[in-house]
Amino acid sequence: MCTNHIFPICMLLSLLLGACQPGQQQPSSQDEQMIAAIFEESLEHGQAYSNLEQLCKQIGGRLSGSVQAARAVTYTRELMEALELDRVFLQEVMVPHWERGPAEVAEVYPKDAPPHRLAVCALGGSVGTNGPLRAQVVEVKDFEQLSSLGREQIAGKFVFYNRSMRAQFIQTFRAYGSAVNQRTQGAMEAAKYGAVGSIVRSMTQTIDDYPHTGAMRYDEQLPKIPAAAISTQAAEWLSIQLQSQPELELMLEMHCQTLPDTLSHNVVGEIRGSEFPDEIILVGGHLDSWDLGEGAHDDGAGCVQAIEVLRIFQALGIRPKRTLRAVMFMNEENGLRGGRKYAELAKELGEHHIAAIESDRGGFTPRGFTIQAEGTALKHIQQWQPLLAPYGGRELVKGGGGADIGPLREQGTLLIGYSPDSQRYFDYHHAATDRFENVNRRELQMGAAMIASLVYLIDQYGLK
Amino acid sequence: MCTNHIFPICMLLSLLLGACQPGQQQPSSQDEQMIAAIFEESLEHGQAYSNLEQLCKQIGGRLSGSVQAARAVTYTRELMEALELDRVFLQEVMVPHWERGPAEVAEVYPKDAPPHRLAVCALGGSVGTNGPLRAQVVEVKDFEQLSSLGREQIAGKFVFYNRSMRAQFIQTFRAYGSAVNQRTQGAMEAAKYGAVGSIVRSMTQTIDDYPHTGAMRYDEQLPKIPAAAISTQAAEWLSIQLQSQPELELMLEMHCQTLPDTLSHNVVGEIRGSEFPDEIILVGGHLDSWDLGEGAHDDGAGCVQAIEVLRIFQALGIRPKRTLRAVMFMNEENGLRGGRKYAELAKELGEHHIAAIESDRGGFTPRGFTIQAEGTALKHIQQWQPLLAPYGGRELVKGGGGADIGPLREQGTLLIGYSPDSQRYFDYHHAATDRFENVNRRELQMGAAMIASLVYLIDQYGLK
Repeated sequence: MCTNHIFPICMLLSLLLGACQPGQQQPSSQDEQMIAAIFEESLEHGQAYSNLEQLCKQIGGRLSGSVQAARAVTYTRELMEALELDRVFLQEVMVPHWERGPAEVAEVYPKDAPPHRLAVCALGGSVGTNGPLRAQVVEVKDFEQLSSLGREQIAGKFVFYNRSMRAQFIQTFRAYGSAVNQRTQGAMEAAKYGAVGSIVRSMTQTIDDYPHTGAMRYDEQLPKIPAAAISTQAAEWLSIQLQSQPELELMLEMHCQTLPDTLSHNVVGEIRGSEFPDEIILVGGHLDSWDLGEGAHDDGAGCVQAIEVLRIFQALGIRPKRTLRAVMFMNEENGLRGGRKYAELAKELGEHHIAAIESDRGGFTPRGFTIQAEGTALKHIQQWQPLLAPYGGRELVKGGGGADIGPLREQGTLLIGYSPDSQRYFDYHHAATDRFENVNRRELQMGAAMIASLVYLIDQYGLK
Repeated sequence: MCTNHIFPICMLLSLLLGACQPGQQQPSSQDEQMIAAIFEESLEHGQAYSNLEQLCKQIGGRLSGSVQAARAVTYTRELMEALELDRVFLQEVMVPHWERGPAEVAEVYPKDAPPHRLAVCALGGSVGTNGPLRAQVVEVKDFEQLSSLGREQIAGKFVFYNRSMRAQFIQTFRAYGSAVNQRTQGAMEAAKYGAVGSIVRSMTQTIDDYPHTGAMRYDEQLPKIPAAAISTQAAEWLSIQLQSQPELELMLEMHCQTLPDTLSHNVVGEIRGSEFPDEIILVGGHLDSWDLGEGAHDDGAGCVQAIEVLRIFQALGIRPKRTLRAVMFMNEENGLRGGRKYAELAKELGEHHIAAIESDRGGFTPRGFTIQAEGTALKHIQQWQPLLAPYGGRELVKGGGGADIGPLREQGTLLIGYSPDSQRYFDYHHAATDRFENVNRRELQMGAAMIASLVYLIDQYGLK
């Protein structure tokens, strides 16, 4: 058992015994005390923040198939081995291997002015340009406008998608959802009308000069055209230029390519349950990240929080009734192979995951959880709101669990997503700014404690 | 009326008319729509963030009595004049004038090692050292320990207060409250036992190398000894050194001094009420700040939010029933003269402030408000929780209003404090890191909209 400080074990024992008395099923003042102890442990002695620093600064961005992703597997396996869990193991999974190559260039040639460079990056999965690709640019807001322009006005040109994320959506993920199809489907839609390339305004509400990458996909029946993102500043600038110079030309050069699939791994750590070892409670995040930043909020935060949950249980001497697993999923960003493989193996082995909690919305201050359930199952979780509210966990609402744990749903697992405050997330998401310096220690550790508290309650009381 | 964008006035009028129907007293779906419009205005077209940039970058730290404080008076007066309010005016107030002078030095002389410098700053109001001041150091955690050591072990030495803010307090202001007497009273307590100076661990939960200043006070019956803060890193280091070398000496040199009181001003902007002009609703922050940083969170944020509340009313074409005032108070940090003067003048003029809302806890994401009331008055505000909750304003709880508005209390004003998330506040508070870059645009603008929404509701329905 890993203990890095003195804890009043006698008090803890009495709390545990109190909470486990036969017949007692409802949250009690002992639970209050245990959750206070979990937060104290995380805020006073937490290791999630220093672990994240290592992951970001010693390894950095870790796209599936990269050397950095392999190092992250080794690093997190070793981290969990040092916790002296009951079991730490890897799951083999073949992942896509896309490489950006040398830095991309986008240049625009205004009349009577020198060439102007735009902050640009290839979208993940894009083909390269095979040398400089120069053409005119047509700006659209959505696929309807694209369709109305038709092949006549699109063929041979770049399509520039410039619909911004709506600032007034308070949940920024909703704003993202309202705009992201430009990135994921923009190239295939543009290809229908003979475009030579797709340029998308970065998926962020901030106006700055960092391009934000992210996944895109092709339609195998259509030509594969290069797809890039430009910064919001560049998008604003380009849009203004196009108003006065609709024949403006843009040159794009990208060297990205897709290599053969590569062997990689999910990383799993486990504390075996003392009473119901066959009932698994999973906490997880994804270990891969985009390559432009350090994958700090997305999703280094979720990984170190999942490990921290197990560490907190060890440090406080809480022997769970059920089996707890921390899972670092590989390849969430551009394939979801890790999540699919995990569910496939769980099914093969006949494992029973009663609940899975994913943290993949950044290491920000806690707001609550989204629960992929309704009726009794949702109410069962919501009864614990008074215990979590003092720590910011006031919002226990119906909502999605998370991409990596999604494939477990058909096995009857209750899926839960950790919900931190979302205001700053898209400032950093998939950009060079997603680095360790933009994570706050207390906010990250509060999140770990919030997840550990919910795991503790599910472990104590099960799911009805 | 200042309108910087097209707004559907017809929709607004219908909202307003709807909300004002005779006999209608309770929040309605019109209120929901108006609050949505307030947030949209703030997030899409907000000016609080760019105003804060000007205040921080063109003026900077603005301690009472400084040239920068005078510039901030002019700047915010002009900002409000540009809004074409009904009235913008200054209130004269004499304020203390303390100056830091050249950078402070603290140096320690370990055995068999070169001198070691500590990150240090004078506390506001401290006397200087009158040249280098060198003495041994006695570390204590609190005044009880100081008292038990007594004059014999304290006389002729520095007292080093090293009790940290407790990490496990979720409301960080509570942690601050548990530690700050070391800073405010440390020097006078140490002087009782003949200490030559007082050194306090900075009031922050972060371990870094920035010293945090703040107010301290003397007992006129006791010797005035120099008082300084060292960074938390320096405090940790010094504490370890003292364990092995209790006779370690420290040299402190500070050139700070108190000059004669200076004429300064509160800055007030007003929209006159259409139905009940004699009922004033005040929103405010304090314009002065400590000198080490830019006074971004403390309290530039509160000032630009107060102005933004009036701007939002103007931009949306909301003519309030009651009189709205934005007040930039001068001298909160080291004297509270502005707050006292404001209340004094209000009394003289027979003004009736029904409510005063202060924003002085940073420009972070909204959590709610603390209301200095109980019973019916508290419940009256709490009935609006469902309207504010979707924007993060879930916590409408009993609590303090704010330092500047405090003196209005005896006039029967309902005092309310804006409560943003508190996790990051003390990372920056009173330190060089309290600069514009550490404020997030969305979080700041959300705060302005949250305050504007409460002002709107108080204006619509009054206080019963």
